[in-house]
Amino acid sequence: MSVILLNHIDEVKSNIKEWKKDNLKVGLVPTMGALHAGHASLIKKAKAMCDKVVVSVFVNPVQFGPNEDYDKYPRTIEKDKQLCEEIGADIVFAPSAKEMYGENVNLSNTELTYVCPPYNYIDCLCGKSRPGHFDGVATVVTKLFNIVQPDFAFFGQKDAQQLFIIKKMVKDLNMNLEIIPCPIVRESDGLAMSSRNSYLSIEERKSALSISKALFEVEKLYNKGITDSNILFDTAVSVLDKKLELDYLEFRDFNTFEKVDKISKNTLTAIAVKIGKTRLIDNIILG
Amino acid sequence: MSVILLNHIDEVKSNIKEWKKDNLKVGLVPTMGALHAGHASLIKKAKAMCDKVVVSVFVNPVQFGPNEDYDKYPRTIEKDKQLCEEIGADIVFAPSAKEMYGENVNLSNTELTYVCPPYNYIDCLCGKSRPGHFDGVATVVTKLFNIVQPDFAFFGQKDAQQLFIIKKMVKDLNMNLEIIPCPIVRESDGLAMSSRNSYLSIEERKSALSISKALFEVEKLYNKGITDSNILFDTAVSVLDKKLELDYLEFRDFNTFEKVDKISKNTLTAIAVKIGKTRLIDNIILG
Repeated sequence: MSVILLNHIDEVKSNIKEWKKDNLKVGLVPTMGALHAGHASLIKKAKAMCDKVVVSVFVNPVQFGPNEDYDKYPRTIEKDKQLCEEIGADIVFAPSAKEMYGENVNLSNTELTYVCPPYNYIDCLCGKSRPGHFDGVATVVTKLFNIVQPDFAFFGQKDAQQLFIIKKMVKDLNMNLEIIPCPIVRESDGLAMSSRNSYLSIEERKSALSISKALFEVEKLYNKGITDSNILFDTAVSVLDKKLELDYLEFRDFNTFEKVDKISKNTLTAIAVKIGKTRLIDNIILG
Repeated sequence: MSVILLNHIDEVKSNIKEWKKDNLKVGLVPTMGALHAGHASLIKKAKAMCDKVVVSVFVNPVQFGPNEDYDKYPRTIEKDKQLCEEIGADIVFAPSAKEMYGENVNLSNTELTYVCPPYNYIDCLCGKSRPGHFDGVATVVTKLFNIVQPDFAFFGQKDAQQLFIIKKMVKDLNMNLEIIPCPIVRESDGLAMSSRNSYLSIEERKSALSISKALFEVEKLYNKGITDSNILFDTAVSVLDKKLELDYLEFRDFNTFEKVDKISKNTLTAIAVKIGKTRLIDNIILG
């Protein structure tokens, strides 16, 4: 059967209703489109675990700051649909902003109900330089969960803070689904897959390669027995291309998300940089 | 069949799961217990509309301010269960705070995911004198919705702002249920039913009677053709017992919740007062 492209919430809900009647397990892969091999791995995982798979494609305005790349974020719905078709997803849900938030709606928290992750979870890492971002993410993900009512939802480990926040939200609000984290997919040279990689010039692309190189160097030293975060930090920074502007490079416990000084198994090493106007993130879980 | 009292989320969820398999319609009546005839009317309505009825009884700590009556709020679970039994509810869900929020949990928004209603909807009426209250309400109601997964949830019109905020939340977050508003139930002398009426001394009870009197006076004048909010405000205030401390008396459009100067059909006249340490609210919809 072919994948179907739906733009309206009601259409999705009525499909889901039929599936639920037949007791089918539903998987959701929430994306902003511009699908790449990283997304493909999520969709394949969903396909393997669920009877029906919904891929949402929505560039969510409320998770972008005023000076961020909402307008220029790549939109490639035909290609996205094609990929979903090839992997065997059942529905591509690609609503408009109007469909999701209503017409002429003021998208601020004065006019819309928001889901707000705990302050301690957002006042760090990407949240620090993107105020409001994770409120927007938690809100749209809640909406998608309510629309699709999945048994499983699939999130990439690349957005580690997002994954952590979504898991916390599901627990705190007693949501009826399980979050399935999926490993980072990389280009053959090590660069983490990202829709934002398409922004990079050839020169920038070369510089960006030093991000994953820095993480792999941390891993190498950790595997040799070095656990002092200061040493690992300095090493990573020395590997980074000088054209990169470092936003953060942090070591956190993968389970509690607390900062650690001494690196151990399950330490998340997370990095964010700016290259020109492009912001890229990457991370590695040690051990 | 007898009503069953459940204290654990998992127990409720597994009951609901069975019901859903049989395609039964589930109704939820969220309460803080100390049930009175107002609650009874909600449960009866739920019983009439649904195959299965869950009454939640939970004094929710996160919707009380630090100087409010969380500790002294009446708790009468045996009587509550009895009433639910008589009306024919199926489950009384009475979790502990620990069950709902976890052990040793800091209940602030630094550690917990909150659902936050729009600022314009909470920065007025009861929200103005109860900062954080409606965040706590929206959060616990979302949790209860996710636990019980009702087709219908029943809310009293007495908490008009709460009802408005919950309806907005359901719409904004695409929740899969319908909110059923139920009319205010009054004592024979007109006082709106409230669990907090039990706080009142005999003297205070007499003063409190002037709250509904003031609203009925507004209604009488409106029915005579008086639509100027200033006149109606002054009349209402003149009826109020002098021992009452007025928090607000406002005229708002029942559908948009915007303030109105000229009263018309569907104008909500809402009032909040303090009598001694007790805060009481009441309202009337004109026309």
